[in-house]
Order: sequence, then C-alpha cells, then structure tokens
Amino acid sequence: MSKESTPLQFNEAFCKGNVGSFFRIDKVDCTKQSKFQRIDIFESSELGKIFALDGVTMLNERWEFAYHEMIAHVPMFSHKSPKNVLVIGGGDGGTIREVLKHPSVEKVDLVEIDPDVIEICKKYLPSTASKLNDQKVSIHNEDGKNFVMRKHSEYDVIIVDSTDPYKGAGKSLFTEEFYSACRDALKENGVFSAEAENPVYDGKEMERCFEEMKKAFPIVRPYKAFVPMYPSGFWVFAYASKDVEPKIKDSSRINQIKGTLFYYNLEIHDSAFVLPTFLRKLLD
Amino acid sequence: MSKESTPLQFNEAFCKGNVGSFFRIDKVDCTKQSKFQRIDIFESSELGKIFALDGVTMLNERWEFAYHEMIAHVPMFSHKSPKNVLVIGGGDGGTIREVLKHPSVEKVDLVEIDPDVIEICKKYLPSTASKLNDQKVSIHNEDGKNFVMRKHSEYDVIIVDSTDPYKGAGKSLFTEEFYSACRDALKENGVFSAEAENPVYDGKEMERCFEEMKKAFPIVRPYKAFVPMYPSGFWVFAYASKDVEPKIKDSSRINQIKGTLFYYNLEIHDSAFVLPTFLRKLLD
Repeated sequence: MSKESTPLQFNEAFCKGNVGSFFRIDKVDCTKQSKFQRIDIFESSELGKIFALDGVTMLNERWEFAYHEMIAHVPMFSHKSPKNVLVIGGGDGGTIREVLKHPSVEKVDLVEIDPDVIEICKKYLPSTASKLNDQKVSIHNEDGKNFVMRKHSEYDVIIVDSTDPYKGAGKSLFTEEFYSACRDALKENGVFSAEAENPVYDGKEMERCFEEMKKAFPIVRPYKAFVPMYPSGFWVFAYASKDVEPKIKDSSRINQIKGTLFYYNLEIHDSAFVLPTFLRKLLD
Repeated sequence: MSKESTPLQFNEAFCKGNVGSFFRIDKVDCTKQSKFQRIDIFESSELGKIFALDGVTMLNERWEFAYHEMIAHVPMFSHKSPKNVLVIGGGDGGTIREVLKHPSVEKVDLVEIDPDVIEICKKYLPSTASKLNDQKVSIHNEDGKNFVMRKHSEYDVIIVDSTDPYKGAGKSLFTEEFYSACRDALKENGVFSAEAENPVYDGKEMERCFEEMKKAFPIVRPYKAFVPMYPSGFWVFAYASKDVEPKIKDSSRINQIKGTLFYYNLEIHDSAFVLPTFLRKLLD
C-alpha cells in the first residue's frame, strides 16, 4: 500500500450527471453551511482559489476576470456617465472591483443575501473581495428582489451577478416581476446586465431568462464571452435597457483603464453581441 | 446490493490531471488499437456518438458542427473561388462535409494517416463520414507532412484538422517545416487554416504553433470559436496565407448554403478574429 493519501477531487456534474468537469483540490481553506447554502473555498494548483456554493463553482481566481469584466464593463461603458450602481448577488466582490475602475462612480449598493458569503470572501479571496471595503460601497444583506422593489429611478446601472436559476437564493432573480422592478429602479438612460446561463447544457433556462426579460424591457440584447470556469465555457449575458442600445459612449474612458483589463477591449464590446447561428435562432 | 451495473465514465484530464471533464458512456460501439492509436466510439445520451483517439475526444455528434464549420468556412469564404482543397487529418469526415457544401469545389484530397480511422468512422459515424464516399474526394493514407512536401502550387485551400501536437501522429504537423510545405503547396491567392489548441490549458502549445507558422507565412491571423466538446470550450484556429487577408470575398455564397450552417454566419466570420486582451497579448 502506498503511504500517499488520495488527493481530493471536486466533481461538478451537469445534465443529470451525464457530463461534468473536475479539478484536483490541493487544500480546503473553508467549508461552512450558512443559513442559505454550503460555502466552500478550495485551492488548486492550476486554478488558484475556488469559491463554490452548494457544490457549484462560482469562481476560480485564474479565470474570474473574463466573467467579471464582461458582466460589468459592457453595461458600464454603454452608459454615458455611470454614478449610482446596484449589484445584486456578487458577494465575492469581483463585479464591484470592476465597477469601481470607472472614475465616474460615486456610490455602489451591493445586495448579497448571505452575510457569510461576504465574510468568507473577505477572509479568503482578497483578489476579488478587497474592494468590498471601499467607502463608495454599501453592503445590504437581504433578498435582491425585495431590495430592488423599493427603489425607483435611482440607478444608472444595475448588474445581476446571481447564482443559477434552478433553486435557492437565485431563483426569484429570473422572473418578469424581478426584471420589471429592475427596470423601474433605473433612471432615464439606465442600463442593466445579468448572467444568463449557457446554451450548451442549460439552453432551456437561458431561453426562459430572455423570455421573462423581454416582458420587462423594450431593449434586450444577448451577448457572449468565454468563461472557462463555468460549464461548457460558453457563457451568455443579457444586456437590457428602456432606451439605450449597448454602444460604447466614450472610447477614451476605455483607454484610461485599459491597463487593468485582461478580457474586455473596444472591439470585444461589439463582437460579443455577434452570435453563432444556432444561438441566434434559439433567442429570436 | 443493487442489481444495476455501474455506468461507464469517460474521464479526460488536462494539466497533469489537475483538471478535466467527464461524460457517462451509455454504450461502447467500438474500441480498437490500430497501428497508430486507440480508436474508440462511444454513445452518450447528452452528446450523441463520441469519437476518441488515445483517450482524447476528437468529436461528439452534438457539438462537432462548431469546430468543423469554423475550421472550414473561414478559409473557404476567404478564397474567391476554391476548387482544389487539401484536408490533412480529419478522417472523421466532418471537415470534408463542410468543404463540399461549396459548389465551386472540384477536388478534395484527404490525407489521413490511419486507415482504421476512416473505416471505423464510415461504419459508426455517418453524420460526419458519409461524404468520404463523394466522388470529388480522394483519400490518401499516409503521413500529412510527406504528402504535402511533394505538392507545389496545387491547392486553393489547405485545412489542417489534426490531433493535438503533444505526441504521435499529429506532432510533425506543428512545425515550420510543415507549414512551409503547406505554403508552397498553395496556389497564388491560396489560403490555409489549422486548429491551434486552446489558451486555457494549452497556452504554451498554442503560442508555439503560431511562432512556427509565422516563420512560414507572411499573413497569420488567429481566430476563435466556442467548441464545447474540447478542453475549456475556448478553441483557437489559425488562418494563414501568402497574400490574402481573411475577408469574405462574396457574401452571396453564404446565402446559398446558410440553411446548412448552425454556427458560421456573415458576422461571425469577422468577429471570430476579435480576441480578448489576454489572448492578444499572448499572440503578439
């Protein structure tokens, strides 16, 4: 018998277990059952630290930039001067980190239902969570839908950085009622983005997300990015607005922060909205 | 004890086993050790039939369209009238199927080193292999490099649809010597494409592939596509030519066959060449 211990392996299955991905865990930094979900922080030599909720990868340090840049900068650069921003979900702080790169931003509300997510990410994931302590950021530990339903004409940009729509905390964030509340919480010329799953293993959920959103917003535009940390790597986001198309309003603003960007650039913005034929047909 | 048998699982590991993907095998159609490699055909309820060489997925029926359309139509539509085409590798027939959609094509040489790949794909994978019997197609079972080194100014389009560069049959197809032979086998205005790995788990191999190619071709342009059947889903291809940029020469030709295309379209062609910042920097 070998004296080496068997390494831990994290298996993440999709499609009733018919397909999935795995990575080797070198170290478990933290595992906790909160009031809402199980929160894990692992370490992997290939991926850096991994943050998972209920056994589903939320981010890994190596590839989170692709997701966070694309969910944040597409709406942020589509607004002419974003000052007040609302982020729903995203307790890891990655989206907040990107939002705060925009010098026009004065105030960010972060609504994360689970205070343990905030505490654990602050402790173990400073690469995404360090900006949660920024003085422009206010953290609200409550249900995102309840929060946004109290707001009217308040935000320039709303970003929904939620868990999957299947169950639990994220479920109410994929409904017409929620999207309508977001629309009403936006100022004139306000813009919205949300994660919208993938067309490879969750095509039905993705379609339903867009159907609900189209009931609430006159302008809904799907866009895509390579997000290798998620199932299939083919991630879809939704841009929406009452009145603003997702065009870059001032490209000189990109030049100001381009040294901090690893995925997003001027050309990626427009090309992200170009969809392969099968996805066009699915969402038409 | 349950009477149900444990289902078979196919595990495909990358990065020294630190990460990987898996799928459940419902049926093994064929497994054979040929002179060159182990050839497997599996069936999966989620992915259709899967064709693997030495334990590495070459294709699955559900998502092969993305890979085959993007490796074939980007060069084919960049040429003003492709008549003679050479495909190196690609014994599954998927690339040939796409090439033959172009009515201008008169002759296709397919150079697949392993005759068992051809026979097994013809038997078990008609969805990609049925066009291997087309009268315009000539199959040559020999080393791709040896074949192309005998050819001079003969082809309008050359497509290298090879295995990975790590070992075995595909290794000689990622060298300056091979790329130079391809350049010399092209006619004036000839164009070239090749699979070039992924930047997520094989960034070094991808870089090396482009370095070698740039020694042989004055014009080398990386492009990308979502290919969910491969590691990370983020697949990179290389377009190259002596004198022709990868611009669509006649968009009316796309309209003629667009009913048969599920990934490629007019706008995808150009946007495929727009790269995320990290990849731009890696390949500059």
